[in-house]
Amino acid sequence: MQKQFKFDLKIYYEDTDAGGVVFYANYLKYLERARTEAIYSLGYTNTKLKDKYDIIIIVKSCNINYIKSAKFEDRLSVYSKIKSISKASFVMKQVIKRKNIEISNAEIVLVAINEKGKPTKLPNGFANKLRKHIK
Amino acid sequence: MQKQFKFDLKIYYEDTDAGGVVFYANYLKYLERARTEAIYSLGYTNTKLKDKYDIIIIVKSCNINYIKSAKFEDRLSVYSKIKSISKASFVMKQVIKRKNIEISNAEIVLVAINEKGKPTKLPNGFANKLRKHIK
Amino acid sequence: MQKQFKFDLKIYYEDTDAGGVVFYANYLKYLERARTEAIYSLGYTNTKLKDKYDIIIIVKSCNINYIKSAKFEDRLSVYSKIKSISKASFVMKQVIKRKNIEISNAEIVLVAINEKGKPTKLPNGFANKLRKHIK
Amino acid sequence: MQKQFKFDLKIYYEDTDAGGVVFYANYLKYLERARTEAIYSLGYTNTKLKDKYDIIIIVKSCNINYIKSAKFEDRLSVYSKIKSISKASFVMKQVIKRKNIEISNAEIVLVAINEKGKPTKLPNGFANKLRKHIK
Repeated sequence: MQKQFKFDLKIYYEDTDAGGVVFYANYLKYLERARTEAIYSLGYTNTKLKDKYDIIIIVKSCNINYIKSAKFEDRLSVYSKIKSISKASFVMKQVIKRKNIEISNAEIVLVAINEKGKPTKLPNGFANKLRKHIK
Repeated sequence: MQKQFKFDLKIYYEDTDAGGVVFYANYLKYLERARTEAIYSLGYTNTKLKDKYDIIIIVKSCNINYIKSAKFEDRLSVYSKIKSISKASFVMKQVIKRKNIEISNAEIVLVAINEKGKPTKLPNGFANKLRKHIK
Repeated sequence: MQKQFKFDLKIYYEDTDAGGVVFYANYLKYLERARTEAIYSLGYTNTKLKDKYDIIIIVKSCNINYIKSAKFEDRLSVYSKIKSISKASFVMKQVIKRKNIEISNAEIVLVAINEKGKPTKLPNGFANKLRKHIK
Repeated sequence: MQKQFKFDLKIYYEDTDAGGVVFYANYLKYLERARTEAIYSLGYTNTKLKDKYDIIIIVKSCNINYIKSAKFEDRLSVYSKIKSISKASFVMKQVIKRKNIEISNAEIVLVAINEKGKPTKLPNGFANKLRKHIK
């Protein structure tokens, strides 16, 4: 079984800054896009999780390391793994690469909250799918 | 009476792109910040307009000209005027300057809509305030 | 011959705002991504235009209309055409759609400048390719 | 002597997402704005560091915790401290608050690099100023 999610993207003008490289905050956008697509590949969407299960997945913490710079018109891939899962939260490990060169890596703690902002149990089906991807 | 709103801002890394200048889409952020502050100076906020009057002000069209480039760590000012107003919409003219140098100018058509997305009459008090600022 | 360029994208959290829809400035990002890919499909990149021909393509003006709102997790397409071309500049017409629904349209005037910011003749090969796509 | 830098900002539409709160990547923008202003209050700018000393300050790692959500039209303050300094790098601790409520905190490792991307000794005068602010 596939234990890792892969998401491809390209660097456009909007992503770069006057230093000629990708602005450090923008990597968090790519990590989020990749998580959204990982969830999608499990048969869920953020919209469905909200409308059907009344949960929003929020980021509790993000520990990101910047190894190499990505540049304008680079093609990058984000590799995402589930590291662990508990009742209302899970941890992901995400690595951004340009071909085989590691650009950045991050560990993200995600929590499911309800409309009132309270941590909420992950839906069983969703939690089971995540659990099968723990690497 | 003051007929023009002035909003100051500074250019940070997030605003620039690999061309070394401000990314063209970001000027629309400054125009929006300036409009939010103009509305604020009239005694309203977007939050109040939504919660109390059930209206959201949206942009219908934006015609923007890029005259000069703004650069990293520049200080800019946005000058905003009300050009005209009708029942559910109004037109603003906004100019972005670095000291006396015109960087950009834009004409923005704004429409008040309700929660369902339908154009909605501007609240009387708000419309009157806008009208007094027509230049 | 193909007279129109098509670019697909998806709306992520980063694209939306508290109004629940795509923030108006972000459409300009999609237009830029689509232009970059259109140039790419003609055999050029912004990096090549700069390194080999010493030109940067900048936006001189953007006249954008917002027709419908795009929402979180929408899939959009940007259709781009060359409208006209002159020595150092060209005009593009771009339309953003969700399936057959028009979300936004824009007319963009683009100018080639050199490192000093002076308008510069478009490289012949590049201009010829653009000319073949005038619709 | 002041041991802490304070930077104020306001949340605009551009900062929020469809969840109605500030998008998690955008907090890194505020941290960067606050660091730029901290450097400025020490008598330096990023532009001066680059042009005069040939160094760029880049982020090596960012460990950020999200405590509470910030919302549209909130006013926030970023409090920044120097935690430690070595030859070519320094560590900052930054806390984002809405009045007395902690919204987010982060520890950032910053490195000075030269044009070729090599870690480079911090200029003496700049390092001394940073050292005086270690808390």
